[in-house]
Amino acid sequence: MFWLEMFGIFACSVSGTVIAKHKNFDMFGCILVAIIAAISGPTARDIILDRYPLFWMINMNYLLIITITSVGFQIFCNPKSSHVDGLLKLFDGMALAIFTLIGIQVAQEMGANIPICILLGVLNILFGGVIRDMLCNEIPLVLQREIYVTAAIIGGILYFVLEGMGVTPWIKEAVTMMTIFVIRMMAVRYDWHFPDISLDISLVKKPNL
Amino acid sequence: MFWLEMFGIFACSVSGTVIAKHKNFDMFGCILVAIIAAISGPTARDIILDRYPLFWMINMNYLLIITITSVGFQIFCNPKSSHVDGLLKLFDGMALAIFTLIGIQVAQEMGANIPICILLGVLNILFGGVIRDMLCNEIPLVLQREIYVTAAIIGGILYFVLEGMGVTPWIKEAVTMMTIFVIRMMAVRYDWHFPDISLDISLVKKPNL
Amino acid sequence: MFWLEMFGIFACSVSGTVIAKHKNFDMFGCILVAIIAAISGPTARDIILDRYPLFWMINMNYLLIITITSVGFQIFCNPKSSHVDGLLKLFDGMALAIFTLIGIQVAQEMGANIPICILLGVLNILFGGVIRDMLCNEIPLVLQREIYVTAAIIGGILYFVLEGMGVTPWIKEAVTMMTIFVIRMMAVRYDWHFPDISLDISLVKKPNL
Repeated sequence: MFWLEMFGIFACSVSGTVIAKHKNFDMFGCILVAIIAAISGPTARDIILDRYPLFWMINMNYLLIITITSVGFQIFCNPKSSHVDGLLKLFDGMALAIFTLIGIQVAQEMGANIPICILLGVLNILFGGVIRDMLCNEIPLVLQREIYVTAAIIGGILYFVLEGMGVTPWIKEAVTMMTIFVIRMMAVRYDWHFPDISLDISLVKKPNL
Repeated sequence: MFWLEMFGIFACSVSGTVIAKHKNFDMFGCILVAIIAAISGPTARDIILDRYPLFWMINMNYLLIITITSVGFQIFCNPKSSHVDGLLKLFDGMALAIFTLIGIQVAQEMGANIPICILLGVLNILFGGVIRDMLCNEIPLVLQREIYVTAAIIGGILYFVLEGMGVTPWIKEAVTMMTIFVIRMMAVRYDWHFPDISLDISLVKKPNL
Repeated sequence: MFWLEMFGIFACSVSGTVIAKHKNFDMFGCILVAIIAAISGPTARDIILDRYPLFWMINMNYLLIITITSVGFQIFCNPKSSHVDGLLKLFDGMALAIFTLIGIQVAQEMGANIPICILLGVLNILFGGVIRDMLCNEIPLVLQREIYVTAAIIGGILYFVLEGMGVTPWIKEAVTMMTIFVIRMMAVRYDWHFPDISLDISLVKKPNL
């Protein structure tokens, strides 16, 4: 579990660094965006749950891995290269699966009920990405017509269905993460969008136009 | 009071949903923006006051009403219709009146003094709207030249004047809400703006231009 | 120390007011942006450190000085004047030096270790500026290619080096603030930028293009 979390932190740092580099932030600016992208979701989760001290204040590994990742990517990666974009989507999908699961489990440990657990699972991954995009003055992509939040919510519901069925914890966790990751990757690969649910009432009202 | 609060939550969810729909967010994206628009003001207020657990974590009615409102509006309302815009201003004015009053009263219960109470009353309604607009990459309208914050501050001052005069609580609350709502609606109706308070010193400095 | 802090608060209020005025916010909108610019950094620091009650809730001087500063600047200053811009950079550099030092010391008092202290020192000044710029829908300038975060981090490291050497507290504090202020002012004066640290790997990969 610890390694999964570290990998999620690594993936978020990469996305933060690449986006900040695109915007011409300098070395420390990129590190800061990487830190914000990686820890602000879990920090918001912990503040909402009143869970102190914050995880990154008692374990220095988090800040260390983010800083090393960010500096390394700034030195060795060319953000304009097309390889980076595909890699980014892959890392992002993995971070989505890992952080949603961790968010759900932390909320569950703190005694939250099922809808709150799923909401905090979504928040755990979403908040960092949203703040990262707002810092770079872009509409948060994750909220637009992509299967991103949707994948996290489906995974969260599945988690509690499997729990209700009494499935062994590690299988439950693996299946949840796999499902979120596969749905997200399929959505990216085949350009899936959530269908529009609105009834077009203007057609009903003005049939003669 | 409970019904008023639920109505305020409902009004904020509607505004969040309509704005997110304009930006082509998908179903879950709209629900998330509605949740953020409705609960982030009171959440910020509670975090600042160190008032835990957060209200929406112990009472599921809040998330339930936001989700139902958001899905319902996505299905049945056409956000491009001109009816929606007027309705939105009306709902927004009511939410302003209700949330300001609730913010003041919660801060007062926690023992804050008068200026802090008024500030938290303003924060209670403003924060959700500001975050909602930032998510959609727009300058928060509420901070621009509209009588919005102004209405809330006048209402807040009136609240404490009435309290000092020993007015019956329910009358004090009703008058405060009415005042905020009427000022806001008049400002929308007659396009009121706060006068510019700056002395144009450039005229004084460079009279010969 | 108290006077330094009040001066930092004053400087941040001025920057918030001037930027909000540029965007045509009204009187209360400008006051709110000034409040947000001045207290949201220290507020974020205190929420992260779980340090309650918040400083501006128990001491009314903070809100009072911000409000007076903001109203005064709105009345007597013309934000389009070129004098204001230079003055703003000067004030901003002083606020950077003061707030970084205060952030480090508060974190140290709460028992945080060195990297966390430096990070919270940076956060203490940065957060207000970033939120202020996001409210005005601009890319936060402080994160771009300017020696701003860099100056704060160098100052922070120097602080702990001096502490390790057993230097008298007031000398340590004065030297730290001076260093941050001078680096920042030199960077503004001579248009210093942090060098790009990336190796241009695309050149290595595609030498024949």
